[in-house]
Amino acid sequence: MRTVSWKRGVVYIIDQRKLPKRLSYLRCTNYVQVARAIREMAVRGAPAIGVSAAMGLALVAYRDKSKSKDELLSKLERAGEALKNTRPTAVNLFWAVERVLSKAKQASGTVESVRKAVIEEALAMAEEDVTVNMNIGKLGSSLINDGDIILTHCNTGTLATVSYGTALGVIRAAHGSGKKISVIVTETRPRLQGAKLTAFELKREGIPFKVAPDSAAPFLMQRGIVNKVIVGADRVLAKTGHVINKIGTLSLALGAKRYDVPFYVAAPLSSFDFVKEPNDVVIEERDEDEIHYVGRERITPKGVRAINPAFDITPPDLISGIITEEGIFNPKELMDRLVPRVITKD
Amino acid sequence: MRTVSWKRGVVYIIDQRKLPKRLSYLRCTNYVQVARAIREMAVRGAPAIGVSAAMGLALVAYRDKSKSKDELLSKLERAGEALKNTRPTAVNLFWAVERVLSKAKQASGTVESVRKAVIEEALAMAEEDVTVNMNIGKLGSSLINDGDIILTHCNTGTLATVSYGTALGVIRAAHGSGKKISVIVTETRPRLQGAKLTAFELKREGIPFKVAPDSAAPFLMQRGIVNKVIVGADRVLAKTGHVINKIGTLSLALGAKRYDVPFYVAAPLSSFDFVKEPNDVVIEERDEDEIHYVGRERITPKGVRAINPAFDITPPDLISGIITEEGIFNPKELMDRLVPRVITKD
Repeated sequence: MRTVSWKRGVVYIIDQRKLPKRLSYLRCTNYVQVARAIREMAVRGAPAIGVSAAMGLALVAYRDKSKSKDELLSKLERAGEALKNTRPTAVNLFWAVERVLSKAKQASGTVESVRKAVIEEALAMAEEDVTVNMNIGKLGSSLINDGDIILTHCNTGTLATVSYGTALGVIRAAHGSGKKISVIVTETRPRLQGAKLTAFELKREGIPFKVAPDSAAPFLMQRGIVNKVIVGADRVLAKTGHVINKIGTLSLALGAKRYDVPFYVAAPLSSFDFVKEPNDVVIEERDEDEIHYVGRERITPKGVRAINPAFDITPPDLISGIITEEGIFNPKELMDRLVPRVITKD
Repeated sequence: MRTVSWKRGVVYIIDQRKLPKRLSYLRCTNYVQVARAIREMAVRGAPAIGVSAAMGLALVAYRDKSKSKDELLSKLERAGEALKNTRPTAVNLFWAVERVLSKAKQASGTVESVRKAVIEEALAMAEEDVTVNMNIGKLGSSLINDGDIILTHCNTGTLATVSYGTALGVIRAAHGSGKKISVIVTETRPRLQGAKLTAFELKREGIPFKVAPDSAAPFLMQRGIVNKVIVGADRVLAKTGHVINKIGTLSLALGAKRYDVPFYVAAPLSSFDFVKEPNDVVIEERDEDEIHYVGRERITPKGVRAINPAFDITPPDLISGIITEEGIFNPKELMDRLVPRVITKD
């Protein structure tokens, strides 16, 4: 199963808003449709939205009729801006757009060669995402023991990436290697990615699991029911070791610290920000109606206000390790041990 | 507005499952109906279920045709057992049943005098709940400053008591005394008492507030958006200072500790357990369907399992103070400063 795929100039994206009830695909033929899919969270998960944005640029190139290289580059830049403006927090989006644009600028020769370079880069990034995730899974599964009960949050599996998953990729790799593990997944209010998407994936994979309310997690740790936590990341701040991830992550990390449960983050280097510090990052505030309604069901009284931050920031002292495709890092040593990659601009 | 009231041998209970959409009352003429209302959470909140149970016994007395005092006492005891078996965690339920039974046993003279004593005691307990709550509100509001943004959890207002509220009573008292405060109330998954009931009450009272996902609370503290937390209690362990309250309370307390936000518990002495220690208390595990469904909306895939503990246990080092009708206590000094009251048996 692929969350985002390319077939003869059409980008197919699983519409995650319809899951777990229905597995259906959006068919995108231009970048505006891709941008809308990202903004409205038909596709979500930092790696998946990065690759989707790259594919959005590939659609521009595929259908392009520009007479000059400059004309095409300026179209790509315009599309890149629109794609970057969809969601402010996950860094993969900025990384992906800049990587494709830089490839386009470097391409020598005809307009056609630029088009080709853009499409090839987007497709390469999708393949890379799969191999990077598999490396994360392999490295991370070394941390998992037979019998572990692993708590995870939100969705970090196939649906958050191109096809393998980050934190859920680690769980999948451990299960695949024959370790007897089980999972507790938090519902992940307000959009319930845990209850809907991760439950959907774990069920498909045959990995034993239960769904728990977000707020029950620290209690499950207190009672010794959970013995490891693994989450993903929307952005890792390499300078300080802070991890920005789905709202509720901080609460899990505080519980894990208090009750001595190892707390791991799994994220590709494409989610790393080598420039910013915690106060510089925009934490997306999403529509209040995500709180007021669950499906068609209104839960709050009419006229009531809500507060809906999409992410929170977990400080490095609460994190036992960050699992990347290049190794497992202590969050305090990231800058010492990692060579900064593409410098992204939000 | 009264959550539980008595009128000529009928107990009227607000059906909280219908709120905030509809304010309707259950009409109970026997204790079996009251027990069902408690078990199915038509009425919830530790003080409210205590008084409801007492009124259930009053219904037994009101309709009684026993020939002897012993016959009535054994009927009351049977009803008391059934009422105590509805929910295992809130101690008020056991306290209320024992208080009424002990009054019945002490009543001298005719069967009629026992009947009268039972009904009078139940009605007195309802009135006491109101005055006790008002004292808690008055004492607690001394802790609140002008401009405070107070985070609260679940419902601890009118609907959790007879009419005034515990933690929400403190908020109400502070607001009533002219302090400019606002409130953030957590949704309180899975039954959403915050989003539904507390939002309903705060809106009626005209106190400014917003609803937030449970898991966002530590982040709001990290960002300095919240500067006080007040919650209720289903059981306070006087021997150790632990507070058993709605699932999610521990998570709030961990966030408050980390970010230096004062964390208060408001509870009447009828919620105190003078005997047990944390591991002796049964934490109610409720039906999985409370997780799977929000109203008619199913959120998880079919066939999936869930874990649904109704309460958690907050240790005393995370609690800044416990507000009771007799003063504000440091949780570590409860046993030194409080004279044990009715010893309840679960």
